[in-house]
Amino acid sequence: MNHKIALLGCGTVGSGVYKLIRDWGDSLAQRTGQCFEPVSIAIKSLDEPLSVDVPRSILTTDAIAAARHPDTSIVIELMGGVDFPFQVVMAAIEAGKHVVTANKALLAHKGPELFAAARKKGVCIGFEASCMGGVPIIGPLRLGLIANRIDALFGIVNGTCNYILSEMTLKKRSYQQALADAQKLGFAEANPALDVSGMDSAHKLAILSSLAFGIQVDLGQISVEGIDTLKLSDINAAAELGYVVKLLAIGQRDADGFSLRVHPAFIPKDHPLANVTGPFNAMSLYGHAVGHVFFYGRGAGQMPTGSAVVSDLVDVALGNAQRSFQNLEIWPDQHAVTALKPIDNIESRYYVRLMMYDRPGALASVTRILGEHKISLSAVVQHEIPEESTDKTVVPVVIMTHRAAEGNVKAALVEAERTAVVKGKPVRIRVVEQYAEPKS
Amino acid sequence: MNHKIALLGCGTVGSGVYKLIRDWGDSLAQRTGQCFEPVSIAIKSLDEPLSVDVPRSILTTDAIAAARHPDTSIVIELMGGVDFPFQVVMAAIEAGKHVVTANKALLAHKGPELFAAARKKGVCIGFEASCMGGVPIIGPLRLGLIANRIDALFGIVNGTCNYILSEMTLKKRSYQQALADAQKLGFAEANPALDVSGMDSAHKLAILSSLAFGIQVDLGQISVEGIDTLKLSDINAAAELGYVVKLLAIGQRDADGFSLRVHPAFIPKDHPLANVTGPFNAMSLYGHAVGHVFFYGRGAGQMPTGSAVVSDLVDVALGNAQRSFQNLEIWPDQHAVTALKPIDNIESRYYVRLMMYDRPGALASVTRILGEHKISLSAVVQHEIPEESTDKTVVPVVIMTHRAAEGNVKAALVEAERTAVVKGKPVRIRVVEQYAEPKS
Repeated sequence: MNHKIALLGCGTVGSGVYKLIRDWGDSLAQRTGQCFEPVSIAIKSLDEPLSVDVPRSILTTDAIAAARHPDTSIVIELMGGVDFPFQVVMAAIEAGKHVVTANKALLAHKGPELFAAARKKGVCIGFEASCMGGVPIIGPLRLGLIANRIDALFGIVNGTCNYILSEMTLKKRSYQQALADAQKLGFAEANPALDVSGMDSAHKLAILSSLAFGIQVDLGQISVEGIDTLKLSDINAAAELGYVVKLLAIGQRDADGFSLRVHPAFIPKDHPLANVTGPFNAMSLYGHAVGHVFFYGRGAGQMPTGSAVVSDLVDVALGNAQRSFQNLEIWPDQHAVTALKPIDNIESRYYVRLMMYDRPGALASVTRILGEHKISLSAVVQHEIPEESTDKTVVPVVIMTHRAAEGNVKAALVEAERTAVVKGKPVRIRVVEQYAEPKS
Repeated sequence: MNHKIALLGCGTVGSGVYKLIRDWGDSLAQRTGQCFEPVSIAIKSLDEPLSVDVPRSILTTDAIAAARHPDTSIVIELMGGVDFPFQVVMAAIEAGKHVVTANKALLAHKGPELFAAARKKGVCIGFEASCMGGVPIIGPLRLGLIANRIDALFGIVNGTCNYILSEMTLKKRSYQQALADAQKLGFAEANPALDVSGMDSAHKLAILSSLAFGIQVDLGQISVEGIDTLKLSDINAAAELGYVVKLLAIGQRDADGFSLRVHPAFIPKDHPLANVTGPFNAMSLYGHAVGHVFFYGRGAGQMPTGSAVVSDLVDVALGNAQRSFQNLEIWPDQHAVTALKPIDNIESRYYVRLMMYDRPGALASVTRILGEHKISLSAVVQHEIPEESTDKTVVPVVIMTHRAAEGNVKAALVEAERTAVVKGKPVRIRVVEQYAEPKS
């Protein structure tokens, strides 16, 4: 069967989709019985340089007209951004087109509205490509793990951040050096804010959590910290203590509610996520029946993400995506917004580094403050003043805590910062231990 | 919608499926709109002790009658074995029932025949549970990675063997000790032959390769070596050299044909598969678009495998499994049997251990034989005669080779064994390097 498609956006991923359909189309037709024919490609300007040869006759700058094109049955949205893609996807849905998108920002901000509109119109939205690039993760959440109550997920879902952290860890580069390398190699955007702030990870966490937990997530309630303030010295300290620093997207079903957060974390170096380096992505999921399941692969890039888009095309072309979409009660628009557990209530172990003046009783006054906030310590390490240090009056003191509530740790460190023995703002990084699988 | 099901076999996995449907059924109904009602459960004898409470009224010893039960729409085959399940599944297909099975032996031996019969009758066969237990792997091969030419797969697909090898590696247990432990803990059968011979892995390799490569596999052409002859000393030698020994199922698309094989292998200790320990399973897949994708989780057990069976039930209940089955040209019965590349033509690096008499020129005579068979050496290690050795006349010599054809290595070692300087049969274990992802 032949399916006429509109490709909205022809950047990195759009070019990949076009190439896969062009070069792999015959094989795909043989294996699936489905053919895909791009009948319009919407770009910003007809002068835009494209990394793939496409017929000029199907290029347009009118994405909304392309989305509504009467010949088209499937619209692929790969433009990026939120507001304009929202208009375009809504136009496609209203015109009765199925939509395939890789746009996590769009889905994280406007998913429920789009899903509801699609359901009303009897069309579906495929978004396998929105999270973890070429790694099948939406499919397994939608079907393969459907027999499970998912209890927790821990993911490395942003390749840019993981590349930067890997460079800092393995090559002892500073954050700025590693970012510059990543930009040179195309692993980071010229403006890396969306990635390094943790916001892109939060978008993906919102999408994955809504499917995994059957909740509607208010993006604003996710606690988000990025990697842009991380210091090489803390990454080195992690290694000394047997940990690796990763930016994690975490969703947990606790007895008192769901907690969703994105932040850098110390993870034990024998954790499967610790060995995920470079631009790769990975996800640990814990289901009540299946236990620990782990997925790993390329989370971005032309061909991997293109691969996920094309798998959605096949799913729609077979008619299966529509059935899943109409029958499964797992999409965010079918649930009310769930209030998330406030971050201050979340308990964790912590790595804390304070720059302390080398005075008698200094350490005692800080540990007293921690004790008053019910934070007990598992280790304290004070090295000599480093030779390369420019300020010989202060020395780094590293403290590993036992489990403590975030709110208490924050309050204690604010108080510590106000004392005369601590210089500057203390550094605090959560420690994420191996997740204890619940017994089923 | 309510679906009446027949459960054939109520052992470990059957009980898990029953429990999931019983305890998780409401939640499943809410999330999928589908209800599953077991209307018959076939067991070998009505006196068989069951690990789950089921109504006596639906128990039967007549599996064929249960498979044909007019009320039933889906038959779940979890009996194990080949010949009788084949009859039963054929009876179910002929009676127009969809079939869900976890039986890899059945599919590896009789898959094409069963698939052809099902296709003719307009029913489908779901087998997500046949490989890697709860880890979604059939689903991703069927859909998520459909846009890829899969070039290679490397899997740890037998939890029993992986548990035994992990115990040998991490706790320095002998094969016999580790097997006994595994039996005590329920990770190995009283008769472990199917697992430790590598045959169970070969069954799964046949199924996964047929989907991944679009070929029909003749089980008899897969080269299979088990773990039952592995010595602790070789596992220790691997660790010294920076490797871990794993039983791998390997499928590769080479320029001159497909090679499929199961054998113990040295893998570098930073390979993702090297860190898969205990009863866990894992699979590295390489697709031309997606690159390296890695899946990990529990490959067996009541609830993980039950989880996979139930996901197939939902897929059938939604009507999606049928569409995939009827429309996708990826099932083995749609292809002629593919002649596999003879194992003697496969090139690999090798670990070789010879017990050699400590005589002048001994090593030279062996290395000369290897050279004559075009095998070049990357390392030779000869330790002192170990103190605990009972035969002080021989010393273990470890040789790491560069890439060489299997046939040449075999021939050289047969010749070496015939010399007067080598005692007993030389040990030879293939080295599997990181797979170089082809540039797409």
